[in-house]
Amino acid sequence: MRDVAIIGVGAHASGRFLDKPMKALAYPAIWGALDDAGVKATDINVAYVGNSLGGLLTGQEGVRGQVVLQHSGITGIPIINVENACASAMTALRGAWLEVASGAADIALAVGVEKMNVGDSARTIGALSGVSELDLSELGMQFTTSYAIHPKINLKSRMAEYGWTAADFAKPAVKNSYNGSLNPLAQHRRPLTIEEVVQSRVIVDPLTLLMCSSISDGAAAAVVCSADIAKKFSSKTHITIAACVLQSGVYRLPGDERPDSATTSAYAAYEKAGIGPEDLEAVELHDAMAPSELMLYERLGLCGPGEGPRLIDERITTLDGRVPVNPSGGLCSRGHPVGATGLLQICELVWQMRGEAGKRQIEKRPKVTMAQNQGGLLLGQDSAVYGCTILKS
Amino acid sequence: MRDVAIIGVGAHASGRFLDKPMKALAYPAIWGALDDAGVKATDINVAYVGNSLGGLLTGQEGVRGQVVLQHSGITGIPIINVENACASAMTALRGAWLEVASGAADIALAVGVEKMNVGDSARTIGALSGVSELDLSELGMQFTTSYAIHPKINLKSRMAEYGWTAADFAKPAVKNSYNGSLNPLAQHRRPLTIEEVVQSRVIVDPLTLLMCSSISDGAAAAVVCSADIAKKFSSKTHITIAACVLQSGVYRLPGDERPDSATTSAYAAYEKAGIGPEDLEAVELHDAMAPSELMLYERLGLCGPGEGPRLIDERITTLDGRVPVNPSGGLCSRGHPVGATGLLQICELVWQMRGEAGKRQIEKRPKVTMAQNQGGLLLGQDSAVYGCTILKS
Repeated sequence: MRDVAIIGVGAHASGRFLDKPMKALAYPAIWGALDDAGVKATDINVAYVGNSLGGLLTGQEGVRGQVVLQHSGITGIPIINVENACASAMTALRGAWLEVASGAADIALAVGVEKMNVGDSARTIGALSGVSELDLSELGMQFTTSYAIHPKINLKSRMAEYGWTAADFAKPAVKNSYNGSLNPLAQHRRPLTIEEVVQSRVIVDPLTLLMCSSISDGAAAAVVCSADIAKKFSSKTHITIAACVLQSGVYRLPGDERPDSATTSAYAAYEKAGIGPEDLEAVELHDAMAPSELMLYERLGLCGPGEGPRLIDERITTLDGRVPVNPSGGLCSRGHPVGATGLLQICELVWQMRGEAGKRQIEKRPKVTMAQNQGGLLLGQDSAVYGCTILKS
Repeated sequence: MRDVAIIGVGAHASGRFLDKPMKALAYPAIWGALDDAGVKATDINVAYVGNSLGGLLTGQEGVRGQVVLQHSGITGIPIINVENACASAMTALRGAWLEVASGAADIALAVGVEKMNVGDSARTIGALSGVSELDLSELGMQFTTSYAIHPKINLKSRMAEYGWTAADFAKPAVKNSYNGSLNPLAQHRRPLTIEEVVQSRVIVDPLTLLMCSSISDGAAAAVVCSADIAKKFSSKTHITIAACVLQSGVYRLPGDERPDSATTSAYAAYEKAGIGPEDLEAVELHDAMAPSELMLYERLGLCGPGEGPRLIDERITTLDGRVPVNPSGGLCSRGHPVGATGLLQICELVWQMRGEAGKRQIEKRPKVTMAQNQGGLLLGQDSAVYGCTILKS
């Protein structure tokens, strides 16, 4: 397999854009990525378009990518429409990577786009249930509920086991809100305090409103090509995809002691990339609910059991820390347009690795970074899908 | 890239199965394919699941493949959910092929499944509009209409240009209904006559009811592996994927003389497989409306302009002909569960190539065969997506 480089990225801001259809969200991301890469629309050999909710929320199904790319000048090539809940965009990136790595294509485009605001938040929440197994949504299980009570997450039992407090759960939200305040593409740009987060409305005890990511519209794109021709197109920092791993969840009976799939997918990526968690210099991870960042620290190998809050207290994962986590603001602040999130994470990492991240630039430009996703719910599984991408420069 | 073999196929019957959810349709196909291949669920390294309408018709979106595979024993691997209108299953097959060809996987599963009967045919027709660009469906354009008036198809102008008659349009339906009558998995199993087809209810002049494929539920699956390990698993006829081509449509202004995308995708497949149309010994093609079979004869290079009806009159494409077309009964008789169709075609070709097609077995077992798909509509394009797979034994 050939080495694959990311030579261009582009993103639409995340937020509430009621008047924009999916393609209006996607064009700035696509054109931004092409422009950044220095390639023309007609240079693209194959395109992967990730989206998770377009059928249920916009009525557009079956040919979502063809519609999204319709006036981009990208036609006549294979367009592969993929969905994989919160890892839809990472699934698109993995597809583009495989096309180029295998030699089936020289230059590939990955797009992630989601239109969640349709003027009726109940409809959006209903559609999100379709991202779970429907039998679960019939039980009234929503994502927030699952984060609060899921046996592998169960925030209350973490409080009992580790002595974590509501203030601990708020820490990632506070850290990431500061990062998001420096990101012009972020959905929420006001720095929060521990008190505000803890005292905001309870959604599902112990989760409060400001610990949860919002309904969000957005899009992101990346152009990838074989590493040996990358310099022909772009003179920017050479960034390669060292690993792009996708895993679906496994069924677990009570007492199952196997590592969580967030761990197995991350360690599969570490192995492919030939690194360990200690080598990471920046991470974008899936903080759909703020406390999950604390648990992901453990699962990705950034700390031992129960040590999550310490990484923030000791300023290890802050923007000025040894391994900044969610420099973009993460899902809670930058925004979580479901099918775009994985590529929004990749955009942020590429900008940080190139030194183009503006006011939130990590002082020592990171050279080894990771984006991590998970999403979807099936009864008896941890999550339905996990994704992990490691970039090197 | 490595050679890739198809070592197992399985299918659910096509038809009206109101009480079966998507996974109940998919299991017999998946288990049939695994059993046929002689592999276990845990041998599968990666799975692609194609579906086109599940979000709109079943409410299940985001993790369709994870839900479909839920109790199949296939977990913890990459599951990639793809959609591409009528070529969704062929997109799944192409994904599985690329995984194995590239060496990313040794054994891959491709599944196509569609649940179209939901007890409300108006809802199904509405969902099919989502397979077109929505702006088109707002114009009241349905697939039948488009087949009747589309500038690249325009049946009435073909009647004027070639002297084709309503009886000519009925010929593929009659031929394929005979094939379907021999297929226990077919949706419609009564042999039709020219008179019946011509005199059935007009849907959009000149299309009559019996020239149109029906609303259909169904599923199909294939197990593929690297050709060098195929014999380890299966002692059946060795069948390789000589080409698996996917193309999206291109925009055409009036007077555009470039070949149709059905032609360009087929010739791209011929080139990859190192064959010409004259080498084909059996073809499954996309007769969503019976007259389209006549035009596809031209576009795939099986005959010259206007010669379509002759291929049936002279028994060239009948089951006893030189190159039988739609031995399964095709979309009109076997059925057209949209996201399953491409793999249903592959199942039929594999059975024919192995001599396992029962009463409809082609006497001289075909060694070079092709499956062809197209689907989706975007304003100003021919179709939104085209697929062509060539098999060799």
